[in-house]
Amino acid sequence: MKGLWLENQQLQFRDNLPVPEPPKDEVRVRVLRAGICNTDLELIRGYYPYKGILGHEFVGIIEQGPEEFINQRVVGEINASCGDCWFCRTGQPTHCENRTVLGIVNRNGAFADYLTLPLKNLHLVPENVATDAATFTEPVAAALEIQQQISIQPNQKVLVVGDGKLGQLIAQTLALTGCDLLAIGRHREKLENLEKRGIKTGFSDAVKPKTFDIAVECTGNPSGFELAHQALRPRGILVLKSTYAGKLTFDASALVVDEITLIGSRCGPFAPALELLAENKIDVESLIQARYPLSEGLEAFNHAQQKGVMKILLEMS
Amino acid sequence: MKGLWLENQQLQFRDNLPVPEPPKDEVRVRVLRAGICNTDLELIRGYYPYKGILGHEFVGIIEQGPEEFINQRVVGEINASCGDCWFCRTGQPTHCENRTVLGIVNRNGAFADYLTLPLKNLHLVPENVATDAATFTEPVAAALEIQQQISIQPNQKVLVVGDGKLGQLIAQTLALTGCDLLAIGRHREKLENLEKRGIKTGFSDAVKPKTFDIAVECTGNPSGFELAHQALRPRGILVLKSTYAGKLTFDASALVVDEITLIGSRCGPFAPALELLAENKIDVESLIQARYPLSEGLEAFNHAQQKGVMKILLEMS
Repeated sequence: MKGLWLENQQLQFRDNLPVPEPPKDEVRVRVLRAGICNTDLELIRGYYPYKGILGHEFVGIIEQGPEEFINQRVVGEINASCGDCWFCRTGQPTHCENRTVLGIVNRNGAFADYLTLPLKNLHLVPENVATDAATFTEPVAAALEIQQQISIQPNQKVLVVGDGKLGQLIAQTLALTGCDLLAIGRHREKLENLEKRGIKTGFSDAVKPKTFDIAVECTGNPSGFELAHQALRPRGILVLKSTYAGKLTFDASALVVDEITLIGSRCGPFAPALELLAENKIDVESLIQARYPLSEGLEAFNHAQQKGVMKILLEMS
Repeated sequence: MKGLWLENQQLQFRDNLPVPEPPKDEVRVRVLRAGICNTDLELIRGYYPYKGILGHEFVGIIEQGPEEFINQRVVGEINASCGDCWFCRTGQPTHCENRTVLGIVNRNGAFADYLTLPLKNLHLVPENVATDAATFTEPVAAALEIQQQISIQPNQKVLVVGDGKLGQLIAQTLALTGCDLLAIGRHREKLENLEKRGIKTGFSDAVKPKTFDIAVECTGNPSGFELAHQALRPRGILVLKSTYAGKLTFDASALVVDEITLIGSRCGPFAPALELLAENKIDVESLIQARYPLSEGLEAFNHAQQKGVMKILLEMS
């Protein structure tokens, strides 16, 4: 089968990869569509030493597995958990000590004709959700993780820093809480996309220091972190939603004096993400920048690596 | 009156300071005893540009104020709040936007014969609490702020990093929650002091990585922060209890992937601190390294600045 293989920070297109045989409790999925995420770009830059097929945002069709699931259209949670460790036993499988992660840790990913995942990881895609839209289930779920971690009230002032792919989804999901939201970015046309959906936006100078209850950092840049920190009132909450290349330097004393809470946030719940997509409460179509066939995957990555580019999709056939 | 005056990072002993006249709603307190805190040492190093009488840990006698309070022995909360801002109105006076802070921000402090504070800031010292012990009310309250911010359960593994003055108080207050506690430090005799009170201790090699639910950083050193971070399991909580000279550099991606929470922690509640001292549930006597008369305050500071020294008290007369 065809696939995009990462090895020694080199991404290669291969057309002679073996079609995977699903192990016990897993099913084989024929991939229909997949999305390139910033984490994929960082893996190529060496953020984590991964070797294998890249990709973790996908929609596919179950081709081999229990009969009642054959030919169903599915999306999949990316953490394959052991079920036995403390985290699994306490309902935190995304932190399983023995997990593999689709296209990220010890498990071949979705930029290929086929993948395998445990059946328990898969969610049926509602009929009225287009395949393109369903490809966004994983990042929408990641956005929703914020509301799993902290309670957000309608009277709270919330800042989203970053107007990229993830920032746009986070701003949209936060808007659903009814909070007093401001999304900050550097690209007029991206901010306009949020304005169209009734979300207040601005450039960094629109942020009044020490006035926000919650700030969500989605840029992965130290300057974005600094802006989010400065925006917070004492006892405010800074949500870190991006991974950072290298280390981050910050004023820890200011964090102590103002009793700021910093919280790292990663994978989130698929079921409400699919529900939001089915109810059309999240716009994802406008975030699609381009589509490439899998065979042109390297070109797709070149495109995705350009500054300011939104979601690039890969189409399998 | 006599006092220790800080100006341009120079600490001076002065014997010609005016006895302060209490403004409306404030009372005059004759200081009996005061403690030197690491924040005082950092103010001398220029952590914050303060000019005035230093000192914020004290016990004193009300000399001028409402009749029923005259001659009462008191300790005092250090943040003098406006009562009008959003933080005051929401019960968070330690974060008052217009606050002055005893011996730290725009308010003469306790290393003097007299100070003034709002009457509402003062707490009567129970008769059975010695004046030496009551001097620790402020740092014991600061230790207790942790339990105000996060819930600590008996089945949780908690690490305290640092065996200095604050670390010792924090270890003792955390032990009262019944949690599974380990205190880590670099000084055998200081750790033995905690062992005597039934607290498990060790050097840094006693910390098994990724196993603690909560880690409290009390060293103010980047290496202490690193140790605390590495000790935490995914979704663990890192409490920052020390201010840091300069900036802190850390691996923000690890914080995101493991969904760690970092929380800054400062001033805490006086009433439970006094209660613990009255019930003799906290040992503070063993933390006293030396006593100096106020007139030898500069010698006292020289002593306090030596590495590994515990609490230095100033005695007024």
